[in-house]
Amino acid sequence: MKIDLHTHILPKEWPDLNQRYGYGEWIQLQHHKPCCARMMRGDQFFREIEDDCWSPTRRMKDCDEHQVDVQVLSTVPVMFSYWARPTDTLDLSKLLNDHIAGIVARYPKRFTGLCTLPMQAPELAIRELERCMKNGFDGVEIGTHINDWNLDDEALEPFWAAAEELGAAIFVHPWDMMGQGRMPRHWLPWLVSMPAETSLAICSIAMGGILERYPKLRICFAHGGGSFPATIGRIDHGFDVRPDLCQTRTKRRPSDFLKEFYLDSLVHDEHSLRFIAEKMSPERIALGTDYPFPLGELSPGKLIEAASFSIAEKERMLSGTALEFLGRLRQEFETEASRAHSLGLL
Amino acid sequence: MKIDLHTHILPKEWPDLNQRYGYGEWIQLQHHKPCCARMMRGDQFFREIEDDCWSPTRRMKDCDEHQVDVQVLSTVPVMFSYWARPTDTLDLSKLLNDHIAGIVARYPKRFTGLCTLPMQAPELAIRELERCMKNGFDGVEIGTHINDWNLDDEALEPFWAAAEELGAAIFVHPWDMMGQGRMPRHWLPWLVSMPAETSLAICSIAMGGILERYPKLRICFAHGGGSFPATIGRIDHGFDVRPDLCQTRTKRRPSDFLKEFYLDSLVHDEHSLRFIAEKMSPERIALGTDYPFPLGELSPGKLIEAASFSIAEKERMLSGTALEFLGRLRQEFETEASRAHSLGLL
Repeated sequence: MKIDLHTHILPKEWPDLNQRYGYGEWIQLQHHKPCCARMMRGDQFFREIEDDCWSPTRRMKDCDEHQVDVQVLSTVPVMFSYWARPTDTLDLSKLLNDHIAGIVARYPKRFTGLCTLPMQAPELAIRELERCMKNGFDGVEIGTHINDWNLDDEALEPFWAAAEELGAAIFVHPWDMMGQGRMPRHWLPWLVSMPAETSLAICSIAMGGILERYPKLRICFAHGGGSFPATIGRIDHGFDVRPDLCQTRTKRRPSDFLKEFYLDSLVHDEHSLRFIAEKMSPERIALGTDYPFPLGELSPGKLIEAASFSIAEKERMLSGTALEFLGRLRQEFETEASRAHSLGLL
Repeated sequence: MKIDLHTHILPKEWPDLNQRYGYGEWIQLQHHKPCCARMMRGDQFFREIEDDCWSPTRRMKDCDEHQVDVQVLSTVPVMFSYWARPTDTLDLSKLLNDHIAGIVARYPKRFTGLCTLPMQAPELAIRELERCMKNGFDGVEIGTHINDWNLDDEALEPFWAAAEELGAAIFVHPWDMMGQGRMPRHWLPWLVSMPAETSLAICSIAMGGILERYPKLRICFAHGGGSFPATIGRIDHGFDVRPDLCQTRTKRRPSDFLKEFYLDSLVHDEHSLRFIAEKMSPERIALGTDYPFPLGELSPGKLIEAASFSIAEKERMLSGTALEFLGRLRQEFETEASRAHSLGLL
């Protein structure tokens, strides 16, 4: 079974948010030709997308082509809108969440969902998370930071407590990339800052003692943990030599938490995949492709399948880890066809 | 032989720069007790340092203790002062460079130097580099960016041309860390942003086509290349799928340049060292410790010596790569004692 933990989806259409809220630069789609749309931020072109971004039928066709059984749906991080008035972000989050819930309800063997929340207002976020968890979601996708708060900000404590109690899986995705104003060329906010954002998030969770205070939290970081795993030596060493700066919330070294969170597999390089698997264990790595975006793994699962891991390790990374992270059972997604297929393999 | 490519030094004293230039927040030392000083930026405490930061005698004693034969001296990056009026940065650079030149002239078997330059004014930088190269320096230490310029900025083309012609080795060190305003806790500008700065610099050099236009340049990046080596899969993939953004200056993939630049060994983790050695080849990795700072390797060479490399690979990383990068010969640093020692080993 292949479960793709890291995919993004949007509704095909939504109300004019600039009109609805009356300020800011909200994302809208311009459907300028069949199967294609421009994502616009205010008047500014942000990204060209295709119907694989909104059509469940197209997505299932692509999944069939690559033997992907299940896609975990989450919004596109530019939609987080943490910068806005909290009630407006809540309003937009509900719209996006209800869209995903509708698709999951219609195709429960092929899709499952992570909601988005107005994280800048933790109390509102908790209420919407409660609603979503009742409504079939497995958890939530959040950003690597929330405006000026890193993930160890005290303001977020009630959120972690609620997520733990609700059993919500938390997928952390980079957004609002550090230093992007200094990177006009070569797509560097995506190639340099996104991995740094993810390291910022993991360091904040680890040194912030979040997993110590909320040990049942299940947290997964995108893009193979960004630059965190490969710089863990530097991070641990810094933690050791400057306890005054680094050991203020927990005495446990950042590397001690490596067996307590999850990473997706999106590293585009076998050496790097093997490296994170050695650092973390394959038990902690889950297939994630960033579908349908071009910076993703364009043949879902190929990197894991082609790498030198045992069959059991590959199966774990292709579906077992995702099931554990999501808190779901394999049989919930099995169809007649997949059962026959897996019996055939036995 | 052990050559430590990455060490920092300051003069014990220098004129009051705030008075001398009349603006800005310059670094000064407050010698508040014997063997100790506070680095102050304007009125603000920046870092506590000890006499290993300025005393060649103390440094040689520490080197003897760890069998380090040669230290490559460069200034502390906070002294780059690229933000200032170029003639003032030039003035300060000369002061710092003449200090290093004096130590190298006095102890030529134990120290060699990399100068600092007013990079924000490339023509001034080139003239000072010419002066320094005549004055015994092997090259220059520069920042991962120069104010608003990344290292592929057109303004720097004359500098690369001059450095290539002069045979100056270029050591690139992170400074002015991206996103640091968002990282009030846990020393994260040092642990998260510095590795990202180095990736920014390598990506700029690679995608900017610098090594294609100036193929004889010898460039070494600090901290094992920061987050670049472990995210090379993502960077190459981005380069492939968005040629419109990434292939504007060269068609060669970033990973193609891995055999054309150097990294220091400062990764604090054997897995990570082996990873960069596999990606780059040990031929490209040189011992670097960040002496005398606590985030450095406190037992210089131990990581390389303890790792599972062949004797030849270890020797290469402990001194051979540095000699090649610096453009120096082993016998220039050999003493009677070290010759006897090395014969004894044979």
